[in-house]
Amino acid sequence: MRIGAIEAGGTKFVCGIGNERGDIEDRVSFPTERPEETLRQVIEYFQDKNVEAIGIGSFGPIDIDPASPTYGFVTTTPKPGWGNYDFLGAMKRAFDVPYGWDTDVNAAAFGEATWGAAQGLDSCVYYTIGTGVGVGVYAEGRLVHGLVHPEGGHVLTRRHPEDDFAGVCPYHGDCLEGMAAGPALEKRWGAKGAELGADHPAWGIEAFYIAQAVSSAILLLSPKRVILGGGVMKQEQLFPLVRAEVRRLLAGYVRAEAIADGIDAYIVPPGLGDNAGLSGALALGRAAWEREAAAR
Amino acid sequence: MRIGAIEAGGTKFVCGIGNERGDIEDRVSFPTERPEETLRQVIEYFQDKNVEAIGIGSFGPIDIDPASPTYGFVTTTPKPGWGNYDFLGAMKRAFDVPYGWDTDVNAAAFGEATWGAAQGLDSCVYYTIGTGVGVGVYAEGRLVHGLVHPEGGHVLTRRHPEDDFAGVCPYHGDCLEGMAAGPALEKRWGAKGAELGADHPAWGIEAFYIAQAVSSAILLLSPKRVILGGGVMKQEQLFPLVRAEVRRLLAGYVRAEAIADGIDAYIVPPGLGDNAGLSGALALGRAAWEREAAAR
Repeated sequence: MRIGAIEAGGTKFVCGIGNERGDIEDRVSFPTERPEETLRQVIEYFQDKNVEAIGIGSFGPIDIDPASPTYGFVTTTPKPGWGNYDFLGAMKRAFDVPYGWDTDVNAAAFGEATWGAAQGLDSCVYYTIGTGVGVGVYAEGRLVHGLVHPEGGHVLTRRHPEDDFAGVCPYHGDCLEGMAAGPALEKRWGAKGAELGADHPAWGIEAFYIAQAVSSAILLLSPKRVILGGGVMKQEQLFPLVRAEVRRLLAGYVRAEAIADGIDAYIVPPGLGDNAGLSGALALGRAAWEREAAAR
Repeated sequence: MRIGAIEAGGTKFVCGIGNERGDIEDRVSFPTERPEETLRQVIEYFQDKNVEAIGIGSFGPIDIDPASPTYGFVTTTPKPGWGNYDFLGAMKRAFDVPYGWDTDVNAAAFGEATWGAAQGLDSCVYYTIGTGVGVGVYAEGRLVHGLVHPEGGHVLTRRHPEDDFAGVCPYHGDCLEGMAAGPALEKRWGAKGAELGADHPAWGIEAFYIAQAVSSAILLLSPKRVILGGGVMKQEQLFPLVRAEVRRLLAGYVRAEAIADGIDAYIVPPGLGDNAGLSGALALGRAAWEREAAAR
């Protein structure tokens, strides 16, 4: 089986071909331009690939409500040309196959639950902490959509006592994204995260904010695994700091072995590494094919 | 059809009989004693009722993982006799019928989604704000369980600038429950909430904390409705205060008509009023009966 996968990011697009077992056989990547130009490249890539389904994990906000007249659109992004753009419609006009369509972070959560760090579990929460902060939620064996889709990158956190940084979120100032995304790190310390040493005080403060968001997700959703990905989480020294702070914040309240004794295997990096997003899109494509096959 | 329902609270038990349409035909209530005495009364009540299924929404923490050896147990409560008590097992020995078993707040969320304020919607979040704070989560048409079950009453909130109250949560001090549950109100102001006037400054501070929790739930879960119940929420003046504060906190980030224009119909009291818990247990019982019928 040949399935197409699109990891549609605000900075770059990754397109690939894979099979129903999650093997990615080919991939290309190009910068995200205006939608007409970007979709031209996407369509050109898939033109001769004979895919039986396509899965798309897209930057947002996007409309993922099948009952909505703008289902499949990128909605209110400031990104030039993409606001109110019918992404899924453009794909459907090019290729008449079943489509999976969800947020980039839900796709990554689904990829991790299908073939990665949460394989075999019926729930996980996936955070990406990079240029922005996003959250994908998989619960009771389903991706969570709801009113719009989870936007948990913008939860409020308590301020670190030694941090007087104002925050960079244009909506909320010092929400999680405003305090802990890559641009916040860079503005606060005057250097990119990758340029700061592993023992720089930045990481304790960073873990302080991330751990609050993770604790809130544990309390509200009780996921069976928490996966932390994105550029900032390449700093592996963050994991033990976040785990320790989550345990301090929960203070023994959530009685689960996974947290009491197994937190090193509970709060983890993506099992699929940088492939989480593309593999997730592949899993969305497979699921779309299966849905159509079941309906026939 | 006759279905039994048990709203098992830490202070009182409510037992009732209803039908598959949600009509409650009979009910009794008694204080929660040690489990043997309480279960004796429960079993006596249902003895001659000929119910075809029983649904239980229980205080917790409880074990709701069907694969666990202690499924059906009340687990780590300090309540005398109830710690590690096999509640569901005791019921099953008395009545051989299908059982629904979930947390009291998940039951209430399910009741509201079945017959109440979230009827016809596939997601809602139900908060009870009373002696404690609890959260039930219904997403993608399913109650959320996960690792344990949602415990969202204990999320951290930012401190109100005019509030120096230490908080009463034995685990976290000034978490949501520690700052906003009934006992916190009473300790902070030296009077029960019901004794404070509707224009008392207590309510602005109370709304400040509740709105943070509601905003976090909206950002993480994107529910199609938020229902606020429990004794504290009987103070109806809280609703407009909470709604206004939620909109202030979200700051236009979540682009949904339900929040932009329809928040009065989005953050609401329980449609079933004080029956949310018992009706929810009834809905759990009906669902258990349907599951067994489908499996036969």
